[in-house]
Amino acid sequence: MRNRQWVLASHAQGTLNESLWSLAEADVLRPASGQILVKTLWLSVDPYMRGRLNAGAGMQLGSLMQGGGVGEVVESNHPGWKIGDIAEGPDVGWQDYAVLTPDLPGASKVNKVDTRSAPPQAALSWLGMPGLTAYFAMLDVGRPRPGDTVVVSAAAGAVGQIAGQLARLAGCRVVGIAGSDRKLDWCKTIGFDETINYKAMPDLAAEVGRCCPGGVNVFFDGTGGPIHDAVMKNLATGARVAIVGRVAVANNPAGEDVGLRASSRLIATRAVVQGFVVYDWWNRRDEALQRLAAWHASGELKFREDVMNGLENVPRAFMRMMGGENFGKQLVQL
Amino acid sequence: MRNRQWVLASHAQGTLNESLWSLAEADVLRPASGQILVKTLWLSVDPYMRGRLNAGAGMQLGSLMQGGGVGEVVESNHPGWKIGDIAEGPDVGWQDYAVLTPDLPGASKVNKVDTRSAPPQAALSWLGMPGLTAYFAMLDVGRPRPGDTVVVSAAAGAVGQIAGQLARLAGCRVVGIAGSDRKLDWCKTIGFDETINYKAMPDLAAEVGRCCPGGVNVFFDGTGGPIHDAVMKNLATGARVAIVGRVAVANNPAGEDVGLRASSRLIATRAVVQGFVVYDWWNRRDEALQRLAAWHASGELKFREDVMNGLENVPRAFMRMMGGENFGKQLVQL
Repeated sequence: MRNRQWVLASHAQGTLNESLWSLAEADVLRPASGQILVKTLWLSVDPYMRGRLNAGAGMQLGSLMQGGGVGEVVESNHPGWKIGDIAEGPDVGWQDYAVLTPDLPGASKVNKVDTRSAPPQAALSWLGMPGLTAYFAMLDVGRPRPGDTVVVSAAAGAVGQIAGQLARLAGCRVVGIAGSDRKLDWCKTIGFDETINYKAMPDLAAEVGRCCPGGVNVFFDGTGGPIHDAVMKNLATGARVAIVGRVAVANNPAGEDVGLRASSRLIATRAVVQGFVVYDWWNRRDEALQRLAAWHASGELKFREDVMNGLENVPRAFMRMMGGENFGKQLVQL
Repeated sequence: MRNRQWVLASHAQGTLNESLWSLAEADVLRPASGQILVKTLWLSVDPYMRGRLNAGAGMQLGSLMQGGGVGEVVESNHPGWKIGDIAEGPDVGWQDYAVLTPDLPGASKVNKVDTRSAPPQAALSWLGMPGLTAYFAMLDVGRPRPGDTVVVSAAAGAVGQIAGQLARLAGCRVVGIAGSDRKLDWCKTIGFDETINYKAMPDLAAEVGRCCPGGVNVFFDGTGGPIHDAVMKNLATGARVAIVGRVAVANNPAGEDVGLRASSRLIATRAVVQGFVVYDWWNRRDEALQRLAAWHASGELKFREDVMNGLENVPRAFMRMMGGENFGKQLVQL
């Protein structure tokens, strides 16, 4: 049995293109003791993967492209897993088959997916890493209070659309920023109060100010870059800022990400800015998943997917997501 | 009896010069009921005053220059104050005599100074606003833990020298940044472990990295600007950053303060950045003053003053402080 695998052919320099990866083929590995073999059903492409493409970020040329996915167990050498079980993990990789080790020392990152209440790919979106990111970054870093004005950038993305709905459920007025009217119409459908198309705004800071006359109490930032600066100019006293992503400037090395220093506005507002990585909150994963599932079951949490098909299209899906062309969470179904 | 007063003659534009103020003369006012008249003994010049000089910051042209000071009561129309008492407050202003209202609605900001254990001008430095700024911004925002590496910018300034000593008392390794070797020698005398003269460093970020091989756990930032950027490049995981001042870029309008965006480093380190204003912590003032006084009494907290003489020299002292020419807390004795 053969396994197609996308391997890294060259490290990223500046903008991305599909020739960063090449499609290799190898025999399917057999699971050793304590391992399972899964057939990939769904792959997720997410902004965090961009960093791995840089030289020096740890990915060797020629190695399998890493990435989260969902697969069905086709062979098990682990007493806790049987054929037909559905597994989700961040290390499935861009391939047809993956050998996973559920009990790796340290926190196991292979999760058994319960498909009775949600389809398997939900474990890659609202019931998985993006949902958990939105949950902890909004509720525990942003700490929204009823009546607060909350701004979400990358509002129609996998994380942003959940973050905005969680703020609305917390009793806030929610303003979403994205780059197309079609995406922003969806944001309004799921309960954002106001939306801003940053591509249509010559003075984005002024527009944020117009939408947030009392200032921004919580800023959930998935983009960084000029959008970040524009919102930071409008913080309210005591604001909380969760730095979740920097997709807008992901192709710039960090050393070349130049913009407005926030010191003056931070002193004036006593705002708190915090960088966020979801795995720091992993010990509260079950709590978050239960609440997300309950909101979804009651219809209070909606979610939109954008699905491409076939392993051959994973690089294209990744670049589509990085370019903001996707409409909803970008997934690939195999 | 006549009262000399420095009044604002023009708003600041770019760099400062003494002609922003002019010396006026008026009759000394008499204290109304509930008021006291004090003869100014000491005036403080502090970085926060820079912001008041801008057009639109609230100070009318022709009005008395605001600023903290200490004075002796020469006439009292308030039952709690008698002639000879020493008063300290942020609204004494740049003048020979001030009428103060100790019980203004809201938080009273006129404090009776106990001169038995410290000289009166201590109420303008280590037993006053700078000491309280260092105390709360270092201990409550910075949260230093034993073994942490702590970086203090503007390390020899009124706030910085106290902040560094508090970090040392908390069991930390303390690195001070300032602009002259003479100032940095003083920092070493009072217990800083390492010092960096930023004016002598072509690559300040690399030098911070060399001094802090495990990264910066706490960054107490009094300068902003390029020094801020250099330290932010070296944050450790879980770092805490207190934004206390931006004296390095005080003459730039906030909208023109351009530098490195920190998003990438904040995500990588999950650092927390918080803007700080001391008056938010005023309800814990007594606790802080007691602890500062005890450390000073036991010799664990040292403090250096830089004194000029005469009301006529207050603008010069202010510009000296803003230019970093002072060596210790800049005061003016009348």
